[in-house]
Amino acid sequence: MFKKNYLLAPGPTPVPPSSLLKMAEPVIHHRTPQYCAIFKEVADKLKGIFLTKNDVYTIASSGTGAMEASMSNFLSAGDEVIVGVAGKWGERFQRIAKAYGLKAHIITEDWGSAIAPEKIEKALKAKPKVKAVYTTLCETSTGVVNDIEGYGKVVEKSDAILVCDTIAGLGADIFKADAWKVDVVVGGSQKGLMLPPGLAFISVSEKAWKLNEEARLPRFYFDLRAYQKSLAGNDTPYTSATTLTAGLLESLKLMETEGLEEIWERHRILSKATQAAAKALGLELFAKKPSRALTAVKTPNGLESSKMLKILRDELGVTFADGQAEMKGKIFRIAHLGYMNEYDLLAGIAAMERVMNHLGFQVPLGSGISAFQKKFIEEKGKRL
Amino acid sequence: MFKKNYLLAPGPTPVPPSSLLKMAEPVIHHRTPQYCAIFKEVADKLKGIFLTKNDVYTIASSGTGAMEASMSNFLSAGDEVIVGVAGKWGERFQRIAKAYGLKAHIITEDWGSAIAPEKIEKALKAKPKVKAVYTTLCETSTGVVNDIEGYGKVVEKSDAILVCDTIAGLGADIFKADAWKVDVVVGGSQKGLMLPPGLAFISVSEKAWKLNEEARLPRFYFDLRAYQKSLAGNDTPYTSATTLTAGLLESLKLMETEGLEEIWERHRILSKATQAAAKALGLELFAKKPSRALTAVKTPNGLESSKMLKILRDELGVTFADGQAEMKGKIFRIAHLGYMNEYDLLAGIAAMERVMNHLGFQVPLGSGISAFQKKFIEEKGKRL
Repeated sequence: MFKKNYLLAPGPTPVPPSSLLKMAEPVIHHRTPQYCAIFKEVADKLKGIFLTKNDVYTIASSGTGAMEASMSNFLSAGDEVIVGVAGKWGERFQRIAKAYGLKAHIITEDWGSAIAPEKIEKALKAKPKVKAVYTTLCETSTGVVNDIEGYGKVVEKSDAILVCDTIAGLGADIFKADAWKVDVVVGGSQKGLMLPPGLAFISVSEKAWKLNEEARLPRFYFDLRAYQKSLAGNDTPYTSATTLTAGLLESLKLMETEGLEEIWERHRILSKATQAAAKALGLELFAKKPSRALTAVKTPNGLESSKMLKILRDELGVTFADGQAEMKGKIFRIAHLGYMNEYDLLAGIAAMERVMNHLGFQVPLGSGISAFQKKFIEEKGKRL
Repeated sequence: MFKKNYLLAPGPTPVPPSSLLKMAEPVIHHRTPQYCAIFKEVADKLKGIFLTKNDVYTIASSGTGAMEASMSNFLSAGDEVIVGVAGKWGERFQRIAKAYGLKAHIITEDWGSAIAPEKIEKALKAKPKVKAVYTTLCETSTGVVNDIEGYGKVVEKSDAILVCDTIAGLGADIFKADAWKVDVVVGGSQKGLMLPPGLAFISVSEKAWKLNEEARLPRFYFDLRAYQKSLAGNDTPYTSATTLTAGLLESLKLMETEGLEEIWERHRILSKATQAAAKALGLELFAKKPSRALTAVKTPNGLESSKMLKILRDELGVTFADGQAEMKGKIFRIAHLGYMNEYDLLAGIAAMERVMNHLGFQVPLGSGISAFQKKFIEEKGKRL
């Protein structure tokens, strides 16, 4: 058979062919009206994805760059912050805080669980000097979605700003920056926004800009004041990643055509159907509160998941993700994120059924994909 | 006529079609042997362009990110540095030094002139506490190439490290990192490396790693220790800009096929021929020591250069660059950098002849392109 590749990992995700081709068009100069027009359209459309009236700044970097910006632009050495940590991405905020000499109060939770807003509330009351609360929408290392709306209600009442890393969840899980009172939103290109890695995004509320005035941490490339100034001229302070931005405009147009509510609903349905398939194959869900972006399942006894993932990728063309850090080998992760639909997941689950059997972990052939199909129709509410 | 576009600006530069198409291929996951193989080949080939035995780290950011890394990884607040400033890019180092609270001794020179190694030598002697010297290979804001080899001879004798921003010059002007004793080399993707903007590069010598051990400036995304650790596994610490890296491999293969010496020679010949064309059109060269990457010319009295550049770009498809900052309108810049050959420059110069006449600045039609053609043959040393 032709080997066709299905990238079903929680980032990077597949990119629509029309966006790929946009990025293959000849490079144009970034300081021209032609490029600024593209950049302006991108900046406007990003607001519609973040659901914010605030400017959204585009930075040429991995998502981690914008996570760093969300700390270095609002704080001074020794400042107190709260960081929610129940997986690798919460830990990343913790590590950045340490690198910058911040005093971080860590709210932990077991990997696989969400962090309750009440825990943030309690910490905020106990530590009134806290200036910012760092949270994660979709914790991809565990497949959990956190209650950002709940955090917003709690943090809003304090002087602290609420920062949310939405890199993995944006365009999959429901997220409403302004309605949920999120002050600083961090995003990335290679997940729900259907683009290759290389761009990061960040929006800043008035409350956060106020805090910025007294922030003394050193910063240059990620100094958001420069991005704010440049955005007024539909531009970036340092050379824009022009081809990625041109591709992004195409992906954002596709998202606009589908509609944000419909995108969330597509991810919900794919998520429910994938969970049903996993259960039908005897796999236990890992996330207690699953994100719409991915399904994390526990590796059952008797299945060598790392071997399975390697065969899936190298022989059958299907890329799932192993567990990260301490969860490596203990869970694996099937993404339904970005430019994916039911056929992509059916291919992935079908391949998984075959490899499970190949490795001696017997499951009835067709049981996973049948369960997917049935749940898909049930959740969709109609046959077609 | 069809409008065909010629991007003749000193970055971003045109990208070869085969590299553009590589970037349009389906995205692959970055934590896979498939991607690591690409990344390893890129890392190896970059050494051949930098002419260094040191590792070259690839960062997803604009070149400015690597410039920042070249300061934040080697210094502590209050440390003394020397910065050579004779244009916008030297000023960028100066601004980063200020943002990080470094004590910068600025060696200035008029825009359009190179900074003599003797000036650096004198400053180093006067300021024995200086830990690092920041220099620019090709100062694109003026079109000047600096004597990095000369700086190397001077700085080598001191305890300071030599840092060079080669973003614009690499792959055009002669540059030899190790032979010239350059400790930290900063590069970018969108110039001589024939790729879109979005990747930055940095190499670090043993002497510089030594200095890194005592560097206390806060840093996370640009912390080179993480890149060093990841490179050992042919990987990056944060999500790699996968498609740009895949495109880079193709561009580096093309450079390998041409040969670095031949690339330098192509840029030398195009540079000489463009200078001859400019003179034939009555234009005076701005750079006293011109880089091979671009020709900066003074705007003659009676020519509205900004109007000319706009008509060239919007009506004739030719993008030159205006002067930057204080030189805006006073000079303009014609690049012969990266994926360009004699036909590209002939198109640009022919278009310029027409627009000059259109704007009432009379030049004999054909005089610029004829001068180019003659000088091209003369410098090449053969008819074909």
